[in-house]
Amino acid sequence: MKPTIGWIGLGNMGRPMVSNLLAAGYDVTVYNRTASAAAPFVEKGAKLADSPKSLAETVDVVITMVSDSAALQAVLEGENGLLNGVRAGQSVIDMSTIAPEASRQAAARLQEKGAGFLDAPVSGSVKPATDGTLVILVGGPRDLYEQHLPIFDVLGKKTFYFGENGQGANAKLVINMLLGITMQGLSEALVLGAKTGLDRATLLEMVGATACASPIIAMKTPNILDDNFAAAFALKHMEKDFGLALDAAKQAEASLPATAAAHQTFVAAKANGHGDDDIAAILVQLEKMSGLR
Amino acid sequence: MKPTIGWIGLGNMGRPMVSNLLAAGYDVTVYNRTASAAAPFVEKGAKLADSPKSLAETVDVVITMVSDSAALQAVLEGENGLLNGVRAGQSVIDMSTIAPEASRQAAARLQEKGAGFLDAPVSGSVKPATDGTLVILVGGPRDLYEQHLPIFDVLGKKTFYFGENGQGANAKLVINMLLGITMQGLSEALVLGAKTGLDRATLLEMVGATACASPIIAMKTPNILDDNFAAAFALKHMEKDFGLALDAAKQAEASLPATAAAHQTFVAAKANGHGDDDIAAILVQLEKMSGLR
Amino acid sequence: MKPTIGWIGLGNMGRPMVSNLLAAGYDVTVYNRTASAAAPFVEKGAKLADSPKSLAETVDVVITMVSDSAALQAVLEGENGLLNGVRAGQSVIDMSTIAPEASRQAAARLQEKGAGFLDAPVSGSVKPATDGTLVILVGGPRDLYEQHLPIFDVLGKKTFYFGENGQGANAKLVINMLLGITMQGLSEALVLGAKTGLDRATLLEMVGATACASPIIAMKTPNILDDNFAAAFALKHMEKDFGLALDAAKQAEASLPATAAAHQTFVAAKANGHGDDDIAAILVQLEKMSGLR
Amino acid sequence: MKPTIGWIGLGNMGRPMVSNLLAAGYDVTVYNRTASAAAPFVEKGAKLADSPKSLAETVDVVITMVSDSAALQAVLEGENGLLNGVRAGQSVIDMSTIAPEASRQAAARLQEKGAGFLDAPVSGSVKPATDGTLVILVGGPRDLYEQHLPIFDVLGKKTFYFGENGQGANAKLVINMLLGITMQGLSEALVLGAKTGLDRATLLEMVGATACASPIIAMKTPNILDDNFAAAFALKHMEKDFGLALDAAKQAEASLPATAAAHQTFVAAKANGHGDDDIAAILVQLEKMSGLR
Repeated sequence: MKPTIGWIGLGNMGRPMVSNLLAAGYDVTVYNRTASAAAPFVEKGAKLADSPKSLAETVDVVITMVSDSAALQAVLEGENGLLNGVRAGQSVIDMSTIAPEASRQAAARLQEKGAGFLDAPVSGSVKPATDGTLVILVGGPRDLYEQHLPIFDVLGKKTFYFGENGQGANAKLVINMLLGITMQGLSEALVLGAKTGLDRATLLEMVGATACASPIIAMKTPNILDDNFAAAFALKHMEKDFGLALDAAKQAEASLPATAAAHQTFVAAKANGHGDDDIAAILVQLEKMSGLR
Repeated sequence: MKPTIGWIGLGNMGRPMVSNLLAAGYDVTVYNRTASAAAPFVEKGAKLADSPKSLAETVDVVITMVSDSAALQAVLEGENGLLNGVRAGQSVIDMSTIAPEASRQAAARLQEKGAGFLDAPVSGSVKPATDGTLVILVGGPRDLYEQHLPIFDVLGKKTFYFGENGQGANAKLVINMLLGITMQGLSEALVLGAKTGLDRATLLEMVGATACASPIIAMKTPNILDDNFAAAFALKHMEKDFGLALDAAKQAEASLPATAAAHQTFVAAKANGHGDDDIAAILVQLEKMSGLR
Repeated sequence: MKPTIGWIGLGNMGRPMVSNLLAAGYDVTVYNRTASAAAPFVEKGAKLADSPKSLAETVDVVITMVSDSAALQAVLEGENGLLNGVRAGQSVIDMSTIAPEASRQAAARLQEKGAGFLDAPVSGSVKPATDGTLVILVGGPRDLYEQHLPIFDVLGKKTFYFGENGQGANAKLVINMLLGITMQGLSEALVLGAKTGLDRATLLEMVGATACASPIIAMKTPNILDDNFAAAFALKHMEKDFGLALDAAKQAEASLPATAAAHQTFVAAKANGHGDDDIAAILVQLEKMSGLR
Repeated sequence: MKPTIGWIGLGNMGRPMVSNLLAAGYDVTVYNRTASAAAPFVEKGAKLADSPKSLAETVDVVITMVSDSAALQAVLEGENGLLNGVRAGQSVIDMSTIAPEASRQAAARLQEKGAGFLDAPVSGSVKPATDGTLVILVGGPRDLYEQHLPIFDVLGKKTFYFGENGQGANAKLVINMLLGITMQGLSEALVLGAKTGLDRATLLEMVGATACASPIIAMKTPNILDDNFAAAFALKHMEKDFGLALDAAKQAEASLPATAAAHQTFVAAKANGHGDDDIAAILVQLEKMSGLR
């Protein structure tokens, strides 16, 4: 029998994920800080909880999908917080992108209550969340991971297990820094192309035909050609993830020269007003630095 | 009717390319500095020339595929050089990876003789050369490009036209720097993973499932997992191409911070004895820098 | 009349600083976690306290000189901590190098008790601490700064006031990152020299004669020539300070490309076993990266 | 007896250097592409030559002080060039800043004529040129260096001998890259200071009191405070020297990460219109990148 699920966080990512769980026949109770966001899901059959605490008290598994470490903290703590509602043997799965250290702390707090915890951040944005084709990166006890695989299989196309708590979060930093470097590298290539007189559309078509082609480049190509940088993945979030990756690297004594160089360009982009633009706007910052804007 | 082709350069790339032309029914005459390399092609029906000059005198189109600017220079100059054999109206196509400046100079020298020139370097290594699925990047007169498209269609899956002479070479630098940054970025990601305790095979499988997946990463994954860095594309050549790209950027006033950071790591790799290893060995250098080797 | 001083922290820096205060006629009470370190000062006339709390209760001004934010935290908190001993109107001066945020937090905690706080980190190591020629960087209320100038004048040759609490700590990060880049720059210059066959001693003598000459380069020259990297200022501390500076920069949206590049080299040096060597050992890491070791 | 000197190049540096030779009692013949620049020296007793060739024919020692490799090439070659005027046993000293390779080539060309060559670039700009306090960096045959020390002693305060031809030029690259990194490091420090609310004048005064203090920083402090970037040493020349240093490093397999990062910022500064400003204007570019301008 399917476990009942309590879902916290109905942002851009949370909404389609809950829809997929409902469509798959799960009994879902939702909580969101702004209650109005929950209404459409109640119409589709979800129940509504008025606090993380009361939500925890009525479901088998709690899943959180919030914006950052501070938001998770806010969900956990306080009189009506999750920690006051969980019971021994219950599972909490955090699918947000937060610092590995914050994941380990949440795991420890929940463990004190006898509850199990998985950090299970995802790679992929709104489209794969809608299509149920996210990539899910899990850290925590292996038995818990295996127990909840059916849920992950509804939300994603592929789930990877990376070991103890915090390792899902670590894997997320690794994939996101690679994403950021890919955008930086593509943008530097396009700037060199622009400065040496190569047609941008032809260049991007060429990239798509070579061994460097990747879904992220294909996805961003129309935006770049249209000079349209409305955020699918906000540049400031990538700047933050670069920062988290470099913090983890510093602690682990990993030397990452190109990541550090890319991060400084993202900081420059943020300082020049592109924090709320899409990550593809790193191209705009590099064009400024080369006198093209 | 098909033009007759004179081919200069029977290295790892040249050999399968000539085979494809022969298989497509072209009349090919070959020349190679080391004559023994030509024998297998004579068996397959190719003619043999004893110098670039005599080769030029007997064919419609000359194609060069040599190791670098100096090698092209050696083919062009001297008593038995190509420049002494070409005639007005003849076409020369250089498919080597050389500096844009060297391409423009070769074009100018041939123009003095009334011959046309295309720089048409390729993206892709031995496998796509064998399969006829190279990506071909062309600079030079548009009519010449269009005239020789049937030849390019035999050798590659896709041909892009980038404008005047030197622009094919420029496009090649752009795609190669992106290739180099991709390898550097992947390697930094793997080093962070190794230092934070993530299983490498799982990490690479995860990368392959995300929007960062690319043919080059898929191609290098087995090498990385087997710690096998036998060169498909030698690291020292990528170091050279990074250098050429940064020289072009310097002249064009393009600021490329992550490219420069990656280049310095490739220089370090070369200084630490990895010049003849595959580009994937940049991982080894980054591991050294993080105390993993 | 001179205020009585309570001093916490008798490390390499604290010891000569206390000696200077005693020599200037100040009444000094000392506390150190390891009590044995206090004995020589008692012989010179200092009093001994058995906890930060009891020390605070018996003096006018408390000065802390400890290793990092965590050590200051340990001094402040707990039953026998400073916060349990301070009284309204008392002054606490922290001369340690800690994160600006940690300085602001200490200030806030003390303010709750009605005590005043100055962050007053120093530039200079054991020699200037002994000679009373440190450079002192102060953040906190201006009247407090002015009130305690006579103490600073004993310890240093020059004191700079930078504004509210945390700004002394910020200024310290600024000067230390400049110190770190100077060592990195000198080392890269020496590596280029070594690789192009220039005699190192001549090169260093030349640097000393040019507009790039600085006391830090003069100081480190004998160490470099003797290949002697016993720590005056441990490389791992500079790595930490680079990290703090880049964290501050990230938050303030300052893009620092060369600082980030230098930091990654310091991380590599630490990963390669040079954390406890002197900062001058960054040369050794750069030599490894260039195949010289 | 003093040798007679032929001087080629009466730019900002050449003019005060010739004045010092005349003042020291040397018999000097001058040549300048723009003849009008020579007039004031003729008034002071210098002779005038109408070509490098005729100048070489009438003096013992020829000294060149021109803008770059191409300018030296122009002086050497052609019907009226230096190479057509020099004789066996004569000495040519080039004090320009040019690529080591160009120095070695000039040495080889002159050697064919039996003439000796020293590359003797200087560190220091107009003020030390005027005061005769330049630092002179010499490459070439040791006996030639010793023979001409009296001339160097008039022009500079200190002369260093670095070995065979090209090594003076190499040493110049080493000192200039250190100068460039110092300016970059100072500027990054000032940007961090500005973004964290530290007063710039106080910060610069502080730097001047620490172990990081150097003549170049002292020299540029008024310019920075006055936002006055009129060129004493044009930023574009430092960008060029960074490029030459990195080219030499690439060939010698020296990995220079912070130099490369600084170079890319100088490229950005040039692309943003600061090539003709003073090197101190690298601060302006870094301020732009941090959203301060």
